[in-house]
Amino acid sequence: MAKIDFIVIGDELLNGKISERNTAELAKMARQCHHTLNQVHIIGDNENQFNVSMKQALKQADIVITSGGLGPTQDDQTKNMLSNYFKKSQSESKEALKLVKEIYQSKEREYDEKNFHYHILPKDFIALDNKTGFAPGLFFEYENQLVFATPGVPHEFNKMFELEILPLINKKFSSETELFNFTARTWKVPESKIFEELDPTLWDKLASFGKVTSLPHIFGVDIGVSLDTDKINLAKSQEALKRIIESSPIAEYVWQFGSKSLAQVIVDEASEKGLTLGFSESCTGGLCASMITDISGSSKVFWGSVVSYANEVKVKSLNVSEETLKTHGAVSEQTALEMAIGVRAHLAVDIAISTTGIAGPSGGSEKKPVGTVGIGFATKDSSSSKLYYFKGDRELLKQRFANKALITLLEIIRKS
Amino acid sequence: MAKIDFIVIGDELLNGKISERNTAELAKMARQCHHTLNQVHIIGDNENQFNVSMKQALKQADIVITSGGLGPTQDDQTKNMLSNYFKKSQSESKEALKLVKEIYQSKEREYDEKNFHYHILPKDFIALDNKTGFAPGLFFEYENQLVFATPGVPHEFNKMFELEILPLINKKFSSETELFNFTARTWKVPESKIFEELDPTLWDKLASFGKVTSLPHIFGVDIGVSLDTDKINLAKSQEALKRIIESSPIAEYVWQFGSKSLAQVIVDEASEKGLTLGFSESCTGGLCASMITDISGSSKVFWGSVVSYANEVKVKSLNVSEETLKTHGAVSEQTALEMAIGVRAHLAVDIAISTTGIAGPSGGSEKKPVGTVGIGFATKDSSSSKLYYFKGDRELLKQRFANKALITLLEIIRKS
Repeated sequence: MAKIDFIVIGDELLNGKISERNTAELAKMARQCHHTLNQVHIIGDNENQFNVSMKQALKQADIVITSGGLGPTQDDQTKNMLSNYFKKSQSESKEALKLVKEIYQSKEREYDEKNFHYHILPKDFIALDNKTGFAPGLFFEYENQLVFATPGVPHEFNKMFELEILPLINKKFSSETELFNFTARTWKVPESKIFEELDPTLWDKLASFGKVTSLPHIFGVDIGVSLDTDKINLAKSQEALKRIIESSPIAEYVWQFGSKSLAQVIVDEASEKGLTLGFSESCTGGLCASMITDISGSSKVFWGSVVSYANEVKVKSLNVSEETLKTHGAVSEQTALEMAIGVRAHLAVDIAISTTGIAGPSGGSEKKPVGTVGIGFATKDSSSSKLYYFKGDRELLKQRFANKALITLLEIIRKS
Repeated sequence: MAKIDFIVIGDELLNGKISERNTAELAKMARQCHHTLNQVHIIGDNENQFNVSMKQALKQADIVITSGGLGPTQDDQTKNMLSNYFKKSQSESKEALKLVKEIYQSKEREYDEKNFHYHILPKDFIALDNKTGFAPGLFFEYENQLVFATPGVPHEFNKMFELEILPLINKKFSSETELFNFTARTWKVPESKIFEELDPTLWDKLASFGKVTSLPHIFGVDIGVSLDTDKINLAKSQEALKRIIESSPIAEYVWQFGSKSLAQVIVDEASEKGLTLGFSESCTGGLCASMITDISGSSKVFWGSVVSYANEVKVKSLNVSEETLKTHGAVSEQTALEMAIGVRAHLAVDIAISTTGIAGPSGGSEKKPVGTVGIGFATKDSSSSKLYYFKGDRELLKQRFANKALITLLEIIRKS
């Protein structure tokens, strides 16, 4: 098990132009191979800061990976900074030239040796293949530590880490003990109620198995225990932890033992039961459908969604009555109900869910403030709808509405 | 203008359980007020690492903000770590107790003084209001620097930064010079082609106005220049930069001067022209609609989307002929064309765009590999469709398909 420090380089990450996305992927991939991400340093295009972070990283980690600054333009300075830091002069590398020519050839372009510098490397550095971009990565073994430089573009970073870097890490640092996780995912209960009111001894009971974490997120709290154990005792520990949760007053709030996403659980359980699903979405604007179709295999259970942003579409495609829209408004239990019934017939699915609400910032009123959402469902046997009230800005509200719709959907799948 | 170091605390960010989301927001909000984010340190729940990062942050920044570890459970240790670091013992604070009681009251709950510790603060620390959660933030003035502790939950973090922290920062560090940005967003041309082939002198020409950045992203390259100037000369510089780009061979690839998202530009330009928009989405599964409805005000132009994941829905809602599906397949120019024409009639919109493709990982064939997508459009006067080929995993392909659909849409809006 090796410790990794990750140095992410780029002014654009610190001035809000783009979000850093490689950390989450690196963390996941490292963990799957039982390595740990020790610290992430996000810094600007600045050699001083680079030197400070590199020094600290080499002090505390086995592996240092940098991301960003490998491209062809003048603001791409990572190779020069590495070259200066390790005091390695740069020169042409025959191996690198061969690799770079292959990279260009595979994308049907020709490498221009005179204008480009990808084949010029600091001494003792090795170039790494880039399957989805042009700039090669860099690798250098420094005493007993490994140093890598990767491109910042997420898909290039991911592929290079998986195909080039992980094999080199695994060769050097084979894993002896393994880390496993036990997770119980809860909903509909605040974190403080779990550990202070419902079950004040729960934390300590779980802690006798490993490090406990409690992680609140958009619609619930995930309780996790890291198990530092071998494979033989793993099943026993997991069984014992499950029994502790199941006999606790918090049991009724647990919707999953495991760490799958809500959409994944919906697709899995609907597949098992042979149920087909559809949405009619107003305020969520396609987000519910997009969350479900992120899951590979969702086409087995998901038929479609009618995103009915305009009232005309609600009437024409979903058979919502103009009378209902006039009397109760587009955001109402009645409209939500008719949307669910209408889209179930339209798509010919077993379970249909509808959303109609006000994500803001405009459109709210005293009676129906921004954050109001009507969620309806319709099955062969029954249909119903309800209004809910949430807080947040437009983006957060859209997510909360969509998560509430998916929660409703999972509950109905489980009753079906 | 103050320099901010941001210390993000939480094992869950380093083991891949959740993605760090506060950095991007902090960067944006700080920049709007002309402060700069200097470095981000993402660390585990570990006092040693906290001490190292805090020491470095205090050395290089005017303001240190921590995020995470303020909640009620045993893994929430930020207050204790701050207390130890600054050698400040903890005791009850009357002001904090009053604030915490108000926080609880506003959410219709009662604060339990005996079990909760939110009113116990390190000496000289002040509690900060939390409008969207329960745990108060912390504030401490250390010599001439400001230290803040905030919750990790993104919506709590955002509100607390905006309402509590920014005013305190602005009071202490008023801004003298201002930073402005010039941005030209390009598409359909790789980064290296811009600066090496099309216009080798462009970089240096831009660099005479400020620091140049070149930022490749999923469907293009953003060229930016940071202008360190006063308001009087700003307009002149921006005009001069625009003229440089417009007279360069890269001009034909520039789709926007500014930094709006593709969806925002679509909503703006469709609003101006009074055009209504709709989608029929198969492989993008609602993502196109969700990207458009992320934009406030989109309801003026966006009527809806039919997410037709199942072929039955393509036939029934979009009038795609079964013959077409049988002869050419769901992923074909013919099906894309019929989907666009069908949904334009169904939704009664001016411009309709369709997507049908293979996001994988399964479903590909030799003739139509994973990554193939058909994109169609239909307007009053014309309709057409085309097959495109992309590379990537399911998530990336879905994004690439949706971005290509939105690019097609913007091009048609501009011709309309």
